[in-house]
Amino acid sequence: MYRERIKLLDCTIRDGGLMNNHYFTDQFVREVYRALSQSGIDYMEMGYRCSRELSPPKDFGAWKYCDDEKIKEITDGIESAMKLSIMVDAHRVKEQQFVPADESPIDMVRVATYVKDMDKAIELVNRCHGLGYETTVNIMAISKEIEPDIIEALDQLAKSPVNVVYVVDSFGALYCEQIEYLVKLYRKHLPEDKEVGMHCHNNQQLAFSNTIEGIIHNANFLDASLYGIGRGPGNCPLELLVSFLKNPKFKLSPILRVIEEQMLPMQKDIEWGYLIPYMITGMLNEHPRAAIEMRKTADKDKYAKFYEEIRDVTA
Amino acid sequence: MYRERIKLLDCTIRDGGLMNNHYFTDQFVREVYRALSQSGIDYMEMGYRCSRELSPPKDFGAWKYCDDEKIKEITDGIESAMKLSIMVDAHRVKEQQFVPADESPIDMVRVATYVKDMDKAIELVNRCHGLGYETTVNIMAISKEIEPDIIEALDQLAKSPVNVVYVVDSFGALYCEQIEYLVKLYRKHLPEDKEVGMHCHNNQQLAFSNTIEGIIHNANFLDASLYGIGRGPGNCPLELLVSFLKNPKFKLSPILRVIEEQMLPMQKDIEWGYLIPYMITGMLNEHPRAAIEMRKTADKDKYAKFYEEIRDVTA
Repeated sequence: MYRERIKLLDCTIRDGGLMNNHYFTDQFVREVYRALSQSGIDYMEMGYRCSRELSPPKDFGAWKYCDDEKIKEITDGIESAMKLSIMVDAHRVKEQQFVPADESPIDMVRVATYVKDMDKAIELVNRCHGLGYETTVNIMAISKEIEPDIIEALDQLAKSPVNVVYVVDSFGALYCEQIEYLVKLYRKHLPEDKEVGMHCHNNQQLAFSNTIEGIIHNANFLDASLYGIGRGPGNCPLELLVSFLKNPKFKLSPILRVIEEQMLPMQKDIEWGYLIPYMITGMLNEHPRAAIEMRKTADKDKYAKFYEEIRDVTA
Repeated sequence: MYRERIKLLDCTIRDGGLMNNHYFTDQFVREVYRALSQSGIDYMEMGYRCSRELSPPKDFGAWKYCDDEKIKEITDGIESAMKLSIMVDAHRVKEQQFVPADESPIDMVRVATYVKDMDKAIELVNRCHGLGYETTVNIMAISKEIEPDIIEALDQLAKSPVNVVYVVDSFGALYCEQIEYLVKLYRKHLPEDKEVGMHCHNNQQLAFSNTIEGIIHNANFLDASLYGIGRGPGNCPLELLVSFLKNPKFKLSPILRVIEEQMLPMQKDIEWGYLIPYMITGMLNEHPRAAIEMRKTADKDKYAKFYEEIRDVTA
């Protein structure tokens, strides 16, 4: 399906980095950058710009900070028309600096926030917009919010300079009818010149289908990752989204090649994909942290016990 | 969601058997039968009733034939209110015998057919209905059929005694809007007392979401399998469907327990799940046989090469 306003954003390095404390080799990041550029993907997210004070460098790799100079090292010498984005958590802003956009390799700053931190998010949007960056606000854990709070946040965002507002199904809990409801609510409260974005998690094997559901209701900014890599069950697989869109500006072969050459070996270091503990936190609309913890124990495959425990705790 | 007419059918042994020539141990089949019974699943499909002349016993396990006596051995001593089904290919009928339903452990005969073999399928439905069995017709490869042929088949089925007519997305090619179209077409051409069924394949991670799409448009017979086992990428995972329905008559714990105890070890013998070669045949609306073959070779992970070859052959 062809719709010019649809933009694909790959979050392989950013969301995948949540599983390895953002330690990727330069070679890996370069190969991903090269493949996505060849595929015609619109945006690549390099990681977070975290405060070094709040997140000390002894604990994290380079993609926790996404220094401009580091990004330039990676992209140097690779032909690309792709834009770059980084993510900032609205509730973890401290001393992070941004140079004016025209002096930076970064095109877009994405602000991840909960509804309750919306004022902080909009403050950051204003600052980055003033420096010339495109901006998004990604409203996390939307499946836990009630309608009046969402509406208040959207009405605030409608008056801000933000370019895109995302539905973020952090817990992989939402079904298609709930996606339809949320995207329509966003569209109703946002002016025509702001886009709605989709960021889905794959706990219940619904990340791709929910992204399609978003497209049907006019979401135009779509997050995905190579082979679906991301925290826990991961994200919407980029290869599925590209094959669905059938837009000749996107090429599938470079994506398939980097999956076979880079993502298959990466599965030895990072566990992601459909796993029952994440399916359980998803169906219960819970943060995946309990599943992440139990996957590190000897009981990692005791699914029934985990379900019964977490169901009783959250009931 | 609660809808009394919704029935779940587990096809673990039948569809999974396509990957191991129907060689499952009696112990495995018994444990599956026990767990599904405890979970309140409505139907369990035991396998095929194939002709021993067309499919000689030296090449296949017991679940290729599903003899009544063999089924009784498995179910003996296990408390259960679950009904049992077997499948027959309309185009491969030879000397298969059926005793009257009230002398058999089998409750339902499901006839798998292509549109072109509909007359053979209806002949078999008439015969089994006459013996007292519930019957279904599962129209395979529906994504390759054109509307006038589907309508002609449905109009014939409307006049037959068949209980359920299935949408079978054999190639895992269909998106939600196509599912909506097909289920509505079925509903329009079938009388109210016949149900529509959904059998989805998971090539593009859409088996579960397409099953939900079917439910939304009034499909009430739903196929699924434990942990999604089945040919290639497999089927709609039963655990996801049960957790979605939230019907207290279905219990999730026995399903999770048999997955951890029986299905995880089974992954050493049978490969299923999301794999790029099956995603490629799915997106191209092709039979998975090319993907099955390439997964047996040294090039099993050469995704880009496989895509380029199959795309050029099928273009």
